[in-house]
Amino acid sequence: MAAVFRVTRNALLKRKNNIDTACGLSRSMASKTPVGFIGLGNMGSPMAKNLLKNGYPIIATDLFPESCKELQDIGAQVVDSPGEVAERADRIITMLPSTPNVLEVYTGPNGILKKVKKGTLLIDSSTIDPAVSKEMAVAAEKMGAVFMDAPVTGGVGAASLAKLSFMVGGVEEEYQAAQELLTCMGANVVYCGQVGTGQAAKICNNMLLAIGMIGTAETMNLGIRLGLDPKLLTKILNMSSGRCWSSDTYNPVPGVMEGVPSANNYQGGFGTTLMAKDLGLAQNTATNTKTPIPLGSLAHQIFRVMCSRGYANKDFSSVFQFLREEEGQ
Amino acid sequence: MAAVFRVTRNALLKRKNNIDTACGLSRSMASKTPVGFIGLGNMGSPMAKNLLKNGYPIIATDLFPESCKELQDIGAQVVDSPGEVAERADRIITMLPSTPNVLEVYTGPNGILKKVKKGTLLIDSSTIDPAVSKEMAVAAEKMGAVFMDAPVTGGVGAASLAKLSFMVGGVEEEYQAAQELLTCMGANVVYCGQVGTGQAAKICNNMLLAIGMIGTAETMNLGIRLGLDPKLLTKILNMSSGRCWSSDTYNPVPGVMEGVPSANNYQGGFGTTLMAKDLGLAQNTATNTKTPIPLGSLAHQIFRVMCSRGYANKDFSSVFQFLREEEGQ
Amino acid sequence: MAAVFRVTRNALLKRKNNIDTACGLSRSMASKTPVGFIGLGNMGSPMAKNLLKNGYPIIATDLFPESCKELQDIGAQVVDSPGEVAERADRIITMLPSTPNVLEVYTGPNGILKKVKKGTLLIDSSTIDPAVSKEMAVAAEKMGAVFMDAPVTGGVGAASLAKLSFMVGGVEEEYQAAQELLTCMGANVVYCGQVGTGQAAKICNNMLLAIGMIGTAETMNLGIRLGLDPKLLTKILNMSSGRCWSSDTYNPVPGVMEGVPSANNYQGGFGTTLMAKDLGLAQNTATNTKTPIPLGSLAHQIFRVMCSRGYANKDFSSVFQFLREEEGQ
Amino acid sequence: MAAVFRVTRNALLKRKNNIDTACGLSRSMASKTPVGFIGLGNMGSPMAKNLLKNGYPIIATDLFPESCKELQDIGAQVVDSPGEVAERADRIITMLPSTPNVLEVYTGPNGILKKVKKGTLLIDSSTIDPAVSKEMAVAAEKMGAVFMDAPVTGGVGAASLAKLSFMVGGVEEEYQAAQELLTCMGANVVYCGQVGTGQAAKICNNMLLAIGMIGTAETMNLGIRLGLDPKLLTKILNMSSGRCWSSDTYNPVPGVMEGVPSANNYQGGFGTTLMAKDLGLAQNTATNTKTPIPLGSLAHQIFRVMCSRGYANKDFSSVFQFLREEEGQ
Repeated sequence: MAAVFRVTRNALLKRKNNIDTACGLSRSMASKTPVGFIGLGNMGSPMAKNLLKNGYPIIATDLFPESCKELQDIGAQVVDSPGEVAERADRIITMLPSTPNVLEVYTGPNGILKKVKKGTLLIDSSTIDPAVSKEMAVAAEKMGAVFMDAPVTGGVGAASLAKLSFMVGGVEEEYQAAQELLTCMGANVVYCGQVGTGQAAKICNNMLLAIGMIGTAETMNLGIRLGLDPKLLTKILNMSSGRCWSSDTYNPVPGVMEGVPSANNYQGGFGTTLMAKDLGLAQNTATNTKTPIPLGSLAHQIFRVMCSRGYANKDFSSVFQFLREEEGQ
Repeated sequence: MAAVFRVTRNALLKRKNNIDTACGLSRSMASKTPVGFIGLGNMGSPMAKNLLKNGYPIIATDLFPESCKELQDIGAQVVDSPGEVAERADRIITMLPSTPNVLEVYTGPNGILKKVKKGTLLIDSSTIDPAVSKEMAVAAEKMGAVFMDAPVTGGVGAASLAKLSFMVGGVEEEYQAAQELLTCMGANVVYCGQVGTGQAAKICNNMLLAIGMIGTAETMNLGIRLGLDPKLLTKILNMSSGRCWSSDTYNPVPGVMEGVPSANNYQGGFGTTLMAKDLGLAQNTATNTKTPIPLGSLAHQIFRVMCSRGYANKDFSSVFQFLREEEGQ
Repeated sequence: MAAVFRVTRNALLKRKNNIDTACGLSRSMASKTPVGFIGLGNMGSPMAKNLLKNGYPIIATDLFPESCKELQDIGAQVVDSPGEVAERADRIITMLPSTPNVLEVYTGPNGILKKVKKGTLLIDSSTIDPAVSKEMAVAAEKMGAVFMDAPVTGGVGAASLAKLSFMVGGVEEEYQAAQELLTCMGANVVYCGQVGTGQAAKICNNMLLAIGMIGTAETMNLGIRLGLDPKLLTKILNMSSGRCWSSDTYNPVPGVMEGVPSANNYQGGFGTTLMAKDLGLAQNTATNTKTPIPLGSLAHQIFRVMCSRGYANKDFSSVFQFLREEEGQ
Repeated sequence: MAAVFRVTRNALLKRKNNIDTACGLSRSMASKTPVGFIGLGNMGSPMAKNLLKNGYPIIATDLFPESCKELQDIGAQVVDSPGEVAERADRIITMLPSTPNVLEVYTGPNGILKKVKKGTLLIDSSTIDPAVSKEMAVAAEKMGAVFMDAPVTGGVGAASLAKLSFMVGGVEEEYQAAQELLTCMGANVVYCGQVGTGQAAKICNNMLLAIGMIGTAETMNLGIRLGLDPKLLTKILNMSSGRCWSSDTYNPVPGVMEGVPSANNYQGGFGTTLMAKDLGLAQNTATNTKTPIPLGSLAHQIFRVMCSRGYANKDFSSVFQFLREEEGQ
């Protein structure tokens, strides 16, 4: 490998100025330079569309040709590999299902880092292990590029409406450039700190969400069995110290709220499999940093057992149903 | 035992009318009839004072003479036993540490039920097993009296300021009479349903609170170890689905909030021992009703271990400290 | 209530001598005095038969007439209530499903303690809360009788073959008298200490059994998924520090052992419901003595969830099946 | 990278024959060819000595010069790096603390795989993630070498006395060659299957051991609090279905057994940190294979919390002490 380009704060600032001078305009100016987008799944596709709507030319790729076709029809340029995207765009967003996909897209034989141009800004919105984000940042830095992690919360609906929340980790000097793109796709963009902290924030939130949801399901079930009306119990919890997002916004008990998965036989929403995946990430980061997470760990196991028992594709609030006595028992 | 007086709805209504007629005024009228108060501890004492302030003559007793002395000095009449209270008051409030005390005060040799007058309203604000509340209600009914459970949330401060919350279980026809007294001592009074449901609501709330607190402590600890600033992580959780009372109102991490126990070395607040006691009640009711509470159960065990490891008298949010790596490790 | 007969060691010894003198023979002599037996279910019936086989006249009762009929046909005298048994026998064995039954049989309106003769030996082989055993012992002592707890391990088969194990708690001076009867029904009789310790020993054993079984199921499942042959893994565990009764005697993985429930679709054996019941007792005693049992508590919750999910009547080793990925997932 | 040498069964056999022919003797013959040994810590050092005792010339290296010095004094040849060992030995044993060390020693700049000769047999006795073992095997195969995992059970004492147990994973044709060396250092050598299964077996055993130990500690503590004598309870468990290695061979309660860490203030034995590390591996493999391990996971968390609370260097049976009520509480 040739001499490594070590990115320092000064170098970064200099690089940005050079780019601006070279292009004759800043990144935020009207005549927008193309943005690469890799991963056109349920989430990535509407995200890329929102960038197009905001006037950014898109150079896209995906494993599945159909996904590409749809975006091509509305004006995106489709290429064959992440490497080709990297040759043509100096800002690239990746939105991929899990860690192995990220490794492949960045470091694989046709990966981004094989062809990336110096000064390129790489934004990964996948939810993965923060340790892998850090590895990608180091690998990107060796190529003179900058890697940021920017995982999202909010589902497919929020992606379509550009209402996602982004939690961003990476070099602070690059945050503004990332923010420019992310605000086209989301309503909240929060800078969390060094690379990996975006993932950390997402993982932490989802772990506490999982704990709160199971806790709410257990509590509601116990209360009902002790003779309490579920709506009344919900009201009491929500005016008391038991209050949480799962009790006041996404109640898992059918009949308590409208417009949530529990009102629709746990269809839609956030699948148990996805929650189990995120808890697996929380578990791995906790294990690797020697951090005790007794409830987080048990929550992980509960959702894992649910996946084995037929709840994989139901919303994660179906844990209420899982814990409840079966009919006729 | 002589013929049992079976209290029916009609009988109750009739009894109330008789009382009103006999007294020539309703219970809520100006010239107030005495209220019995049994249990003058940290909570009971300010509660009784608030009744006095509202013009109710108090007939009190407690195991500890000093507690009685203080109340006597400000006008309460002190007697020697729960039975004597029952001879002199037709509304009695009990505020006792735990189930055995309640059993003793109601059914012991000098207990209330030995002397209770027909038509007496018995309000128990202790936190105990709802099954015991039901037993007391049955025993009271046999004597022609009415028993309601009305446990509180809010600590000593709230008791002094008459800002407690009461969750009330019992015969609905008597709720108004109970409410008249409880509003002198609390800001919220909620009717929960049949006898025992007040306890059920309290136990449910505290179980979810315990789960949320440990979950928040784990999450904050993990986030900090992954490089996140605790204030920033709190902000992110509170705008996301991880939000709960323990993250937004009573954060367990020193430095994140003012005016909470974590800002004061976990002094004051709600002791780990008390939380362990309430979780023991949740555990017992869940076991006895065959209700699975995996996280509630583990939360119980964690606070129990904390009691064994020197955290008994610290606020329960000290679970953050318990889980955190020790200095120098 | 008349003057209470306070049983002391000396009084007991004296009483025994009096009885022996009065009868002209010791309890172990050839012409045997009748033994009362209450509770003729799946376990009680073969136990009573074994006493009959050993030459003890039996005076029996049960809620269900059919159970009585069968025993009557082979020579037992059947009476109508526990009280009547107590009038006619000075040694009584009870074998009942759970705590409420024990309370009813001993302290109910037609209960043993209403009619018990002074000096009667009461042996309860039910599995119940040791605190209730202690209460019964106190109540029996007030009547001049002696209560011992003697729960069993071993199932219906062991009961028929007189191969049960008894763990006995109670006054040491009476142990020999109890042992005389218990050895007719079991292969092992162990004196555990003061009243309640028989229950304690049983509860402790079953809690550790439950933990070992779930642990074995998890371990076998993990090993299989990591590519290990289940028989080989079993062999390795059994020669190493992972060895336990569930791995070497009652392996939960189909195909590893013959003659165990896992070889027979988890039919027979010790039902999940029964294990959940025993863990409920362990949970209650732990909660009431403020003893942390994190794994015991989680084991309880897992068997409780299994009861809700269709495993109630399968052998408790079916936890292997519960944790395993479903077909086609 | 040059053409990859694909190791087939035939190639392997041919290679072995060539070696034998070239050397003029088989590996098991009297004039023994040198064995490389990397990692001369508490375990590695006595292991290497036992190979020396059995007549194998040793070519060793370690990060710490002192460790090397000791072995050099008794006849081992010491070299500077794993790469140099690989140049001089065609059988190499590695015994390293954890995954990163294994990665460094095998794939680092001066690592084994930089210099390894075709046909070399690489045996890793470290305890690491089986997925890493598989990666190493693939990397070794690319260089024409063969990698086997052979983690051990038994501590420093067993290592000195050549009484270790080895669980071996890898190509079956090479097992005999590995066995020849391993039997010089251990009493049991078990072939487990394909590469990684040695690690899997070790991880599985230690997970069940951890569960059994905590379960035994909880059970003994509960029994003692219920009035049982610990020696008697141990006897009862060991003749019943609660029996496990932790109850009958390594009892965690002081005073029950001689010659175990609980008899010596939990000094010596297997440190809590090491158990937490092994449970971390179990957790990671379970998470990555989507296998539910509820008790294994909670056991991991408990040992992790113990590490934070001052038990890191005590034997893992000190969990009994951790769960027990503190003096004076």
